[in-house]
Amino acid sequence: MSKENTYKSVLDVDTQLLEDITGLIHDKLDGSLRNILADLYDFDIAVIVDNLEEDDDAFYLFSLLDDETASNVLLEISDERKDEIVERLEGKKLSSIVSEMYSDDAADFVSELDDKEKHEVLQNLDTIDKEDSQEVRELLQYDENTAGGIMAKEYVAVHCNKTVAEGIVEIQQQAEEVDQLYNIWVVDDENKLAGIISLKRFIILMKEPDKIIKDVMNPDVISVRADIDQQEVANIFRSYDLVSLPVVDMDGRVIGKISSDDIMDVMEEEYSEDVAKMVGSDSEELEKKSPFQIAKLRLPWVLITLGIEFIGGFVISQYDETLKKVILLASFMPVISAIAGNTGLQSAAIVVRALDTGLISLDRWFEPVKRQLQTTTIIGLVVGLIVGCIGFIWEDSDKLLFAFTVAISMFISINLSGVVGTIFPFLSKKLGFDPAITSGPFETAFQDVIGVSIFLTLATYLLNHPVI
Amino acid sequence: MSKENTYKSVLDVDTQLLEDITGLIHDKLDGSLRNILADLYDFDIAVIVDNLEEDDDAFYLFSLLDDETASNVLLEISDERKDEIVERLEGKKLSSIVSEMYSDDAADFVSELDDKEKHEVLQNLDTIDKEDSQEVRELLQYDENTAGGIMAKEYVAVHCNKTVAEGIVEIQQQAEEVDQLYNIWVVDDENKLAGIISLKRFIILMKEPDKIIKDVMNPDVISVRADIDQQEVANIFRSYDLVSLPVVDMDGRVIGKISSDDIMDVMEEEYSEDVAKMVGSDSEELEKKSPFQIAKLRLPWVLITLGIEFIGGFVISQYDETLKKVILLASFMPVISAIAGNTGLQSAAIVVRALDTGLISLDRWFEPVKRQLQTTTIIGLVVGLIVGCIGFIWEDSDKLLFAFTVAISMFISINLSGVVGTIFPFLSKKLGFDPAITSGPFETAFQDVIGVSIFLTLATYLLNHPVI
Repeated sequence: MSKENTYKSVLDVDTQLLEDITGLIHDKLDGSLRNILADLYDFDIAVIVDNLEEDDDAFYLFSLLDDETASNVLLEISDERKDEIVERLEGKKLSSIVSEMYSDDAADFVSELDDKEKHEVLQNLDTIDKEDSQEVRELLQYDENTAGGIMAKEYVAVHCNKTVAEGIVEIQQQAEEVDQLYNIWVVDDENKLAGIISLKRFIILMKEPDKIIKDVMNPDVISVRADIDQQEVANIFRSYDLVSLPVVDMDGRVIGKISSDDIMDVMEEEYSEDVAKMVGSDSEELEKKSPFQIAKLRLPWVLITLGIEFIGGFVISQYDETLKKVILLASFMPVISAIAGNTGLQSAAIVVRALDTGLISLDRWFEPVKRQLQTTTIIGLVVGLIVGCIGFIWEDSDKLLFAFTVAISMFISINLSGVVGTIFPFLSKKLGFDPAITSGPFETAFQDVIGVSIFLTLATYLLNHPVI
Repeated sequence: MSKENTYKSVLDVDTQLLEDITGLIHDKLDGSLRNILADLYDFDIAVIVDNLEEDDDAFYLFSLLDDETASNVLLEISDERKDEIVERLEGKKLSSIVSEMYSDDAADFVSELDDKEKHEVLQNLDTIDKEDSQEVRELLQYDENTAGGIMAKEYVAVHCNKTVAEGIVEIQQQAEEVDQLYNIWVVDDENKLAGIISLKRFIILMKEPDKIIKDVMNPDVISVRADIDQQEVANIFRSYDLVSLPVVDMDGRVIGKISSDDIMDVMEEEYSEDVAKMVGSDSEELEKKSPFQIAKLRLPWVLITLGIEFIGGFVISQYDETLKKVILLASFMPVISAIAGNTGLQSAAIVVRALDTGLISLDRWFEPVKRQLQTTTIIGLVVGLIVGCIGFIWEDSDKLLFAFTVAISMFISINLSGVVGTIFPFLSKKLGFDPAITSGPFETAFQDVIGVSIFLTLATYLLNHPVI
């Protein structure tokens, strides 16, 4: 956790250090604590503040930080600890901590406060720095999942008619206020985006200080509008290997900047959301610590799944005569529904993933659907054959009929699951839902019901109308 | 797809453009094709090369590209199209395309060639640029999932005793060769990493050209050793909001650089791998187009799941007498195993994700395990109660005993699944496996078997030893 040259491991919390710090807090040895804090990165301080046992201790340590460090720490700790600290902080102090944040972080932070706190912080910000508070208020207007919601107001722009030397002076004046500065936007008279120059290019161009920026900039600059979805922004960053991206308004005027660190957070957030949805929970779960809160997040999904499974149970109860007659069918029921559920989930997850990353799109659904179906046909044939053989060996009477029944049921349910699993994500995207939800547990439950229904219906029919 | 100021959407393939280009290729109108290509970003050209119907057309278009563009395009297209093009390219041409790549991309690319091609390309590279080929050979030594496997050899380092002015000259000389240059490493006499200076800082410092770099650098530079896992490198990037990170050897000497674009690819790759494993497939599936290949990737997992499910089937067959007596048990079987499987998967997925992102670690397993168990206890109580009530209403005789049996079975299997789902990821990480695999389909299948076994054993026991 110390600033060593060779970094060991993020978040391997040094329990010894934690104990030492707890001891120092209890003894109120502020001097020693400040010495330790001075040697740590802000992120590592956040890890410690997050991992101290007692809220009191965490708040004590947090209070020792200067506003700038406090602002960084506050952005990195878990929701629960953050709420605890924010609640104890005076409004004035909280506001001056927020005023140290970059505009995008400040807006995210303020948006999560309750209405009363939000109002108070914004009012205090007005008196600390009118311009800052304007920027935060502007950013609060955007949907948090769009380019506008993740952009910062801090960027450096130079006019296209200036010289390289003038541009450098401007960068020198503006740079201190801007985090993560790697590219300079070039704008025209109306503040419309005209091009881009990297800092690297500026340093190379220092040998030709009289060149006009217009003549040396890269005019092929990629930009996004503020209303574009953050997942799409992430795809653009990845595709074009960007480190920063200008955000423009409807008329092409520069209004903000998105940096690669914002995008890494977006990617992380979107992934966690997808995984959580796939298993029927909520990505907020990773932030929650109380089992009751986690259970509250999961229970709705569990109950929906339960409801669907009971439909399956009802279907089974309709075929109790068949089951009693050939009790081995009961042994094949879970096999068929599990494998159908599994192949459906495979198709769903792959399609969801490909939709997310832009590998396939709504307009081009035919190819991937066809490919998934060809795949499930192959899998259905192989697995159907195996299940048929096992059925043939296992059942005592009517071997062939039984084998035929289980094999055909397996084949049909795998393919039907494949169709459903492939088409559902497209449908839900088309209807404006998040496709990730269709690879969730109730999709599997749904496939269970399909699988069991096909199986028992077919079995009952074949047992009454033996074809073999 | 054109270089518009406001970017529309990545990968919304312009089908009209595709048709036009196909037409021009068939008419062999190279001039017009070159004009279109000149107006497109390399990434967009890759999308077109990837989406042309015929391999012949794709190769024709690819052949029109200059080596530098060709190198970028080759890195962005799907595996299948890439293999097709590489096969048709002459060794000499392929080598001069590879020589245009940055060292890390070149190493990745070469590592995927078959042995004969690899040997030929490396030999040709020796004659084109001895230094380049040395770098590629060096990078090929590293495991592809480590810092060494993703780093590039192109970076700019300046000596700590130089002045700012000397540093700038050095940057100007080296910068053209280095992609994504935002930070300069500062090294001592032995090439050991001593600090870091951002280009922004250099531009601000231009006013003080005589300052010694040692006095103005940031000595608190984070670095990683080449053998660190790429997922951990990604966590470091995210935690400390980095855009580039120096890689050092055992003695702290600089040997390479990792950039944020590499990390975005790592995040994407690790995530796709996780999702694929969760559903029992392989992330390579996204790259494959032949249903046979996809089926080959999925079948092993489906067959393992099938095997486990048949164990469940066998357990059921052992209790056929119980089932025949109380056939309604058959209706509750899928309900209990599905819900148990679901809650186990929830715990597993959350733990896997938290292990990946470093939210929890091997040393601190007790807290998260405890929290998961408390959560499943709550869920088990709620769901057990509901299932018990439904059982009470549904069953005709022995209502209370039946309700008690299904409720208790539900409660026990949910909690057991929670334990297994939470502990398995830790165990597999401890044993050196990828924890993601434990949230895969056979985990669910395993929970199925547990759930059904508990249920039928308990039911048989209670029916023979009625306690209520």
